[in-house]
Amino acid sequence: MPITAIGLDADDTLWHSENHFAVTEERFGALVGPWVEGEEAARRLLDRERANLRIFGYGVKGFTLSMIETAVEVSDGRVPAEAVQEIIEWGKEMMAHPVELLAGVADTIERLRGSHRLVLITKGDLFHQESKIAESGLAPHFEAIEILSEKSPEHYRKVLGRIGVEPGRFAMVGNSVRSDIAPVIDIGGHGIHIPYGILWGHERVDDEPQGPCFHRLERFDQLPDLLNELG
Amino acid sequence: MPITAIGLDADDTLWHSENHFAVTEERFGALVGPWVEGEEAARRLLDRERANLRIFGYGVKGFTLSMIETAVEVSDGRVPAEAVQEIIEWGKEMMAHPVELLAGVADTIERLRGSHRLVLITKGDLFHQESKIAESGLAPHFEAIEILSEKSPEHYRKVLGRIGVEPGRFAMVGNSVRSDIAPVIDIGGHGIHIPYGILWGHERVDDEPQGPCFHRLERFDQLPDLLNELG
Repeated sequence: MPITAIGLDADDTLWHSENHFAVTEERFGALVGPWVEGEEAARRLLDRERANLRIFGYGVKGFTLSMIETAVEVSDGRVPAEAVQEIIEWGKEMMAHPVELLAGVADTIERLRGSHRLVLITKGDLFHQESKIAESGLAPHFEAIEILSEKSPEHYRKVLGRIGVEPGRFAMVGNSVRSDIAPVIDIGGHGIHIPYGILWGHERVDDEPQGPCFHRLERFDQLPDLLNELG
Repeated sequence: MPITAIGLDADDTLWHSENHFAVTEERFGALVGPWVEGEEAARRLLDRERANLRIFGYGVKGFTLSMIETAVEVSDGRVPAEAVQEIIEWGKEMMAHPVELLAGVADTIERLRGSHRLVLITKGDLFHQESKIAESGLAPHFEAIEILSEKSPEHYRKVLGRIGVEPGRFAMVGNSVRSDIAPVIDIGGHGIHIPYGILWGHERVDDEPQGPCFHRLERFDQLPDLLNELG
């Protein structure tokens, strides 16, 4: 069954995102340095983020609130107000950071557009994702743009229903096995994993997907050749 | 031209929302009381919210970050970390607050469903709005649910395009003239204004819409009669 539609994740697939989180986490480690050492700070922050996910959802604003909360916690209430303000400024910087496309993305998307239906499927903060999509200049290449609060098999099923594509004719491209690959293979689609240098702790999985519907590439510009092979 | 489709705003139209902001703003006034008096605190907070809107967008998480920032500002950096943590707890309470439908909403929606296509059109935080929609139990009554980052004429035009309705056959119901009524009248639709007891400062407008496409009701359960009159 030939693949007719391609879903593309956005953060860390089309453009850099996790590197900005990593830079901010490093700054955060330095800020809470007086109270807790580096690795412990990172661990506490990830724990706090995870606990807050079900209340705040994904995105920079929730991350910023989690940093503030962690700073209050690890400092036992001694973190000064200026440091809190500094954390908020980091959040604003992240929200307003220019979009930097990954290598090969612009040309490859342009090429794929001629042969496949393209759908952008991202999760997280609506406002921030829309801003980045607009700024990326890639929006005109996509037949649909789906911003989801979560990427479960059920969410993917709904998207495919909306655009009218059978799972077997659909391939999802993304950097997260947990969010982009496993749930799509689950519903009978293809998953094309293109790892990004850094993976957020929450996205880590122990199991690798198996079978003929799982594919892995090193670079985005290898996509057209793989799709050719798959037919 | 008979109205065939109805757009319904969510916060303060289907369920209470602004009252939770009002309660939190009151708590905030008390928290920053040592540094600034009540009305000045509210003014500074609204200024901060407005300045942050273009960075954070709408919703509770941005509001929470704006409260923290305002507290740091008005206290000249003297607000203690425990107070910051308290503000974050208020934000979490707001995010997790149970949905309370406004009077007459459930029955009226049930009735309208038989005569009109119903679309929920709300703006703000994707994650929070989805949670509230799911919890409200109203989702099955809507043909489509549109969560937007902003409610401009252009946004409404896109929604009507997606659902395939001419503006003249569409009426938008909501509590905000600025977000729900004016932009819809602008593109040739009907606006049905049902004020809520409290209106967020940012939503206030000086001009009342005029003309035959502007309607105002006191209560949600008056909707079917008005729609009957309009044909």
